[in-house]
Amino acid sequence: MDHSSSLGGDASASATRITPGFALRPEDIALAAEQGTATPGGDVADYALRLGDDALILAQRLGHWISRAPELEEDVALGNIALDQLGHARSFLTYAGSAWGKSEDELAYFRHEPEFRSAHLFEQPNGDFAATIARQFIAANYQFPLYRELSKSTDPMLAAIAAKAVKEVDYHLDHSTQWVLRLAGGTEESRRRMEAGLALMWPFVGELFEDDPLIAKVGDAGVVPSSLKEEFDRSTGAVLAEAELDVSGHPMATGGGRLGRHSEYLGFILAEMQVLAREFPGAGW
Amino acid sequence: MDHSSSLGGDASASATRITPGFALRPEDIALAAEQGTATPGGDVADYALRLGDDALILAQRLGHWISRAPELEEDVALGNIALDQLGHARSFLTYAGSAWGKSEDELAYFRHEPEFRSAHLFEQPNGDFAATIARQFIAANYQFPLYRELSKSTDPMLAAIAAKAVKEVDYHLDHSTQWVLRLAGGTEESRRRMEAGLALMWPFVGELFEDDPLIAKVGDAGVVPSSLKEEFDRSTGAVLAEAELDVSGHPMATGGGRLGRHSEYLGFILAEMQVLAREFPGAGW
Repeated sequence: MDHSSSLGGDASASATRITPGFALRPEDIALAAEQGTATPGGDVADYALRLGDDALILAQRLGHWISRAPELEEDVALGNIALDQLGHARSFLTYAGSAWGKSEDELAYFRHEPEFRSAHLFEQPNGDFAATIARQFIAANYQFPLYRELSKSTDPMLAAIAAKAVKEVDYHLDHSTQWVLRLAGGTEESRRRMEAGLALMWPFVGELFEDDPLIAKVGDAGVVPSSLKEEFDRSTGAVLAEAELDVSGHPMATGGGRLGRHSEYLGFILAEMQVLAREFPGAGW
Repeated sequence: MDHSSSLGGDASASATRITPGFALRPEDIALAAEQGTATPGGDVADYALRLGDDALILAQRLGHWISRAPELEEDVALGNIALDQLGHARSFLTYAGSAWGKSEDELAYFRHEPEFRSAHLFEQPNGDFAATIARQFIAANYQFPLYRELSKSTDPMLAAIAAKAVKEVDYHLDHSTQWVLRLAGGTEESRRRMEAGLALMWPFVGELFEDDPLIAKVGDAGVVPSSLKEEFDRSTGAVLAEAELDVSGHPMATGGGRLGRHSEYLGFILAEMQVLAREFPGAGW
């Protein structure tokens, strides 16, 4: 395990070296903001908040699987993916918060539900294992091209965070692809479950690729969601074709997550996630 | 994140190189058993089962904390510790199972409660954050000298697994120590909670250091639990003294975990952990 992100860490890591690909830690990002070398404008901060919320909520959902997957090896895999997402969330939230004088913890634990900007996909319940894999398959096929393009952002901090994250999401992509094929080509029951999982999750694809005014405002600092849809269709389509799975009949749900309108699930996630920090706000432990 | 344990991995890893310190993966251990180069005797397998069950149950408890700790940094830390413990469990269970022709998954998901050999400490509920830290403080101060001594085992596979594990538990030890000091020296409330956490968990210390017939049977392949107690008292005592915490008045609970007698909690843990695998036994996905 990589423990470098907690209790001390690498003293040689410099916050000022925000070249893309450098392994930025949230501590580095916070330090850079304190030094005034990298503080996002309000729009970029709003954009970073979206990215962070997606990853944070997904991490919370995935963490549930530790020791509950159908194989111990898979427990470890989903646990690692959860921690990757949590790492990305910490970076994006730290950067976003630096615009408003708020820490990652303040953003994670002390916002109310309508202030969260995550897309609905990420708050969908785990369901059975196949449903979780369907959610991962969509998430990874969305996040991979998103972070790859974001690594070319004109905002050097977003570019650096994305350049690190895309390498990890590359693994998530492979992981979910392998499982979609395995479940679809396994037993009759595993195939039925994979189909049911995709039916549950596919309606939340549309929201991921919707453009809105914030996207126009951030310009070349961000990535236009709709520009990623063709690649998403192609990359998921290739796997679904190999697996002989059809998602063409699934309706699209109404989104709204980017505006703070969430499904009934997010409130429960936040209740679990926030209860401890809220019991002792600012206690300093 | 280290993804090496899933979906492929390092092709250069050889199961026959079981020198202590080599980063053994469960796949390597299973391969060595298949090749007949390292299969434990029945007593050593029973002993490995104990070690694996302790780590497995602790991992299940800790995994719950992902995205629920009082700080995002701490989510990542506890998540990493959970995955470390899960990794140790996989190694010990794979090795134990090789004596009986059973996989790690068969041992984790298809044993009944009385067949589990974990000590009661590990199945104790998470409680609040301070209670989890108290459990970690005891667990790490027990596992660190245990694995250090086990790395000198006459059984080369146990020695190799322990040599790898002790490096990770060294971090767990530091992590829990820092938190005990921080909570005890924090606010009045955090100190009260740390004391309450220790009061909850300390009764389960005694069982960890009890010797029984199996220990005599495995001889120098294992570690005599009672031989570790003095070091445990000294290492925990130093931290507790610095934190001005007193655990001397806590009663000791009756053990029985090594004999398969468990508290009411283990059944619930197993129900959650085993349900998915049991729905489709041997489905091959």
